[in-house]
Amino acid sequence: MDVVVQPGVNWVTLNRTIQDSGLFLPLDPSPTATVGGMVSTNCSGTNAFRYGTMKDWVVNLTVVLADGRVIKTRRRPRKNSAGYNLTSLFVGAEGTLGVVTEATLKLAVAPRDTGVAVVSFPTIDEAARAAARLIRSGIQLGALEFMDEVQMRVVNRHGSEAVKKTTWDESPSLFLKFAGTTDGIKADIAQVRDIVQPFKPRKIFFARDKQEEADLWAARKEALWTMTSIKPKGYSLWSTDVAVPISRLAEIITLSKEDSGKLGLFASVIGHVGDGNFHQAVMYDPKDEAQRASVAKCVHDMMSRALEMEGTVSECLVEELGNDAIDFMKTLKQSVDPKWIMNPGKVFDLPAGSKASAAR
Amino acid sequence: MDVVVQPGVNWVTLNRTIQDSGLFLPLDPSPTATVGGMVSTNCSGTNAFRYGTMKDWVVNLTVVLADGRVIKTRRRPRKNSAGYNLTSLFVGAEGTLGVVTEATLKLAVAPRDTGVAVVSFPTIDEAARAAARLIRSGIQLGALEFMDEVQMRVVNRHGSEAVKKTTWDESPSLFLKFAGTTDGIKADIAQVRDIVQPFKPRKIFFARDKQEEADLWAARKEALWTMTSIKPKGYSLWSTDVAVPISRLAEIITLSKEDSGKLGLFASVIGHVGDGNFHQAVMYDPKDEAQRASVAKCVHDMMSRALEMEGTVSECLVEELGNDAIDFMKTLKQSVDPKWIMNPGKVFDLPAGSKASAAR
Repeated sequence: MDVVVQPGVNWVTLNRTIQDSGLFLPLDPSPTATVGGMVSTNCSGTNAFRYGTMKDWVVNLTVVLADGRVIKTRRRPRKNSAGYNLTSLFVGAEGTLGVVTEATLKLAVAPRDTGVAVVSFPTIDEAARAAARLIRSGIQLGALEFMDEVQMRVVNRHGSEAVKKTTWDESPSLFLKFAGTTDGIKADIAQVRDIVQPFKPRKIFFARDKQEEADLWAARKEALWTMTSIKPKGYSLWSTDVAVPISRLAEIITLSKEDSGKLGLFASVIGHVGDGNFHQAVMYDPKDEAQRASVAKCVHDMMSRALEMEGTVSECLVEELGNDAIDFMKTLKQSVDPKWIMNPGKVFDLPAGSKASAAR
Repeated sequence: MDVVVQPGVNWVTLNRTIQDSGLFLPLDPSPTATVGGMVSTNCSGTNAFRYGTMKDWVVNLTVVLADGRVIKTRRRPRKNSAGYNLTSLFVGAEGTLGVVTEATLKLAVAPRDTGVAVVSFPTIDEAARAAARLIRSGIQLGALEFMDEVQMRVVNRHGSEAVKKTTWDESPSLFLKFAGTTDGIKADIAQVRDIVQPFKPRKIFFARDKQEEADLWAARKEALWTMTSIKPKGYSLWSTDVAVPISRLAEIITLSKEDSGKLGLFASVIGHVGDGNFHQAVMYDPKDEAQRASVAKCVHDMMSRALEMEGTVSECLVEELGNDAIDFMKTLKQSVDPKWIMNPGKVFDLPAGSKASAAR
């Protein structure tokens, strides 16, 4: 139930190659992603709600260190507590501690059947509360995603042909994936109907066949692409990456939308609700100084708010963890790569006066 | 869906305290374990097959470093890829990188219903092949444990009153836990019957009520205790902790049993099959030099065999990972604890001539 691959292997190719085994690597990042990149960024995706992130699927890594030595972080068996967890240290380190040259990946048993549903709600608050209730229900959802009314409108008007077959309700919506046995999924769907009822769903679609499943899910998958495609020439898209505890998700999304609305910015929200993670995509004209300032203020306020809510913001490492934790990380980095030759400038800025820094 | 606790909190007490929330910390180590110990050893247990090990349930840690600074390894949200994964570095480090003073733990939704089954097989090979088939079936088992015929005989003769209510088949047996909805479990049990059939099961028990469930599972939980209780006065028990890829499990258990049999040693085997991990408990008289030598040989051979099978052995860090990986770990340790004051001698021997080493 594992596979040994080199870092240049594309995950879609891998899954196609091992299809007959009934197993798969259950991550779902961009279709162009390779194993090396997925390891180095600890990649996530819409399947993370059920299957976690890349770190949960790496058994061991072969790594070339800064001094040229080659190590294997651990052996194959799943249970292993020998020494420090080097595997998790290299996953997400963006190549700053060593170069990954091979990975043993754990595989999951492919579900026998799948299903997709889309449920729209009158408000973000109701959608978020329904999501929290779904998470707490114990139903094993494969994915739980959110799109706001702006994003739904964009999908309706500018989606692909497949996506436009459906007339989407232009209100805050949850996208659900089911996975399991056919009977199990039927039971799950019945439960979902009951659970969302108190939150006044406006419309509930359940895909009736595999084609409809693919079409419904495509609306979620092409969301960012549709935003990019409607962007006027010369305009930019600022996409944030913020996570907060699930209980605070409705609040931060609502406040951030109010902010961008007040500033007259066109913005849509997509969320990986199960992880408390969301992206706000804000459109602006970079040549318009006032608009640029508005976007910067809007993004900055959202980040401060997320940090106040004990959240995390991928752009603000120091504010989030504090200087002492960053110093600790830098001490580790310095000890195993004293010349800072491993992907210099990534994760941390180069230390002032370092050789690599001077060489730049 | 998370909880903040201090390291002295006992996990049984924690789960009892939060019972009404419908959530629980799904690890299952010794009932006496505390969160601090569970974090520092990256504890496992019979639930690991479904829920993983402690590292999968730690959101962040507050740690006092060797220089007295206090850091928090990350913030609350589940999705987080900011900087290095310090949380996973401290989990399993046995206090050698810092003192854990607080932990935020992720909680799981408690299953609505549970079930227990015990299936016995003619041979270890058939039990192991049935186990592999069960794992690959995609049925969401809560636990999948193995006990050999020796251990089953010990349970029959020396188990507690609860366990003796059942007449156990004295042959290699699998212990299965189910978790989910009542209907879901019924469907799972029907599937298990079909899956094990080709492997000629000798006896299949399914617990008919909660009491029987507790009684059946008690046989697994008290296995090590029964071995200890029948040990003649003055005798010792050597319990090994070995993991191999699941495909090699039947082979290594069979060979190890042959070895101990040939050497005239009384030994039983318990395995966490889902993880490829097993313990062989060997009884011997430490005053009998020849027997001591036999046990040492038997254990040594099993470990070499496990390492040949790309396995892992908790006692042989260097043989398993190689000197370069160990050096890398020591470099990290040295950089953040230059005086080796954090739990000196654990994980690694003290460096020769170090201050802490001299002080001993």
